[in-house]
Amino acid sequence: MELIDKGVLIVLSGPSGVGKGTVRAKVFEESHHSLAYSVSMTTRKPRVGEVDGKDYFFVTHEVFKQRLAEGKFLEHAEFVGHFYGTPLDDVQKRLDAGKDVMLEIEVEGALQVKKVMPDACFIFVAPPSMDELHYRIINRGTEDPARVAGRMKKAEVEIGLAHEYDYIVINDTVENAKNRIMAIIDAQHSRSDRVLEGYRQKILNPN
Amino acid sequence: MELIDKGVLIVLSGPSGVGKGTVRAKVFEESHHSLAYSVSMTTRKPRVGEVDGKDYFFVTHEVFKQRLAEGKFLEHAEFVGHFYGTPLDDVQKRLDAGKDVMLEIEVEGALQVKKVMPDACFIFVAPPSMDELHYRIINRGTEDPARVAGRMKKAEVEIGLAHEYDYIVINDTVENAKNRIMAIIDAQHSRSDRVLEGYRQKILNPN
Repeated sequence: MELIDKGVLIVLSGPSGVGKGTVRAKVFEESHHSLAYSVSMTTRKPRVGEVDGKDYFFVTHEVFKQRLAEGKFLEHAEFVGHFYGTPLDDVQKRLDAGKDVMLEIEVEGALQVKKVMPDACFIFVAPPSMDELHYRIINRGTEDPARVAGRMKKAEVEIGLAHEYDYIVINDTVENAKNRIMAIIDAQHSRSDRVLEGYRQKILNPN
Repeated sequence: MELIDKGVLIVLSGPSGVGKGTVRAKVFEESHHSLAYSVSMTTRKPRVGEVDGKDYFFVTHEVFKQRLAEGKFLEHAEFVGHFYGTPLDDVQKRLDAGKDVMLEIEVEGALQVKKVMPDACFIFVAPPSMDELHYRIINRGTEDPARVAGRMKKAEVEIGLAHEYDYIVINDTVENAKNRIMAIIDAQHSRSDRVLEGYRQKILNPN
């Protein structure tokens, strides 16, 4: 009996500036699982170096709202005036093909996904300290002081929602955070609800 | 602020003959966590090479029943005429000291532990096939044909209870099973309920 194991949906989230993107890139580099990255859609303008269809699908407000009305997003969020969303069909297609899909999204969006797909794996990437988060946000150099203060305030609120996640990975170093996330992904593949789907049939009635 | 993180209780279980002991030994050899092995108490006679206080505490029926009456076991089970039990005080002491404790126990006992400590991590070690399980039981050379048949029947019942566990690790090779279990243990240390206990206080009110 040939069974294709469905992929695991991994939702990576956490405060802006905590370093989710760097950690995610490292996981993709080293994981032995067949990881796929779902490309989000956004109405914000591309930053220097960002590529359409790779970093994001960059669309107009009109296109975004049309798709939203058609129920074509797994989650969506507004952030400093811009919309971000995860195309549902794209995610489902990859999972069905046996790929693990990792979403890197805002906390607001992650909680939306939890309502639709509660069995997904929710990981909150947390800073080792608020001072360190402040330092990282400033160091990014893209935000003015008022925005930095806003992000710090928002981070506190988001950390207050961390109990909604299955796992909390403290990003003290990229290497540590990467290792923790890889272990979590491995463990997902041994979850009894996943394994049992095909196992009992295969083992007790093998033909 | 200095916090000692409590250890994780890991319950390793599965059909007799599946190779739990070998896998467990390998995990202890390689894990970077501070793993402790809880020594069970039993009324069965030592096998050749087994050491009292290391492999088991070997006691009489009278001593076992006295301790049972005093509520001193986390779980206990009867198996082919003999009693087996896990001393509660010993486990709790090690967890409080920050050690991960791994119990290797029968399915019946594991389900008892689940009632007392539902937050523990329950891992079912499963055979890759029933033929392979049969082969492993026979290969052990300690059982007569009637007992082998009894164990196979019991294994089917136990596999039918595998959904009660958090994880199912298929023991195709010791190396694979060991890696899966090590990832599961790592992931337990990132579980949000564990991490959050100290994290919010530490990060939002650091002194």
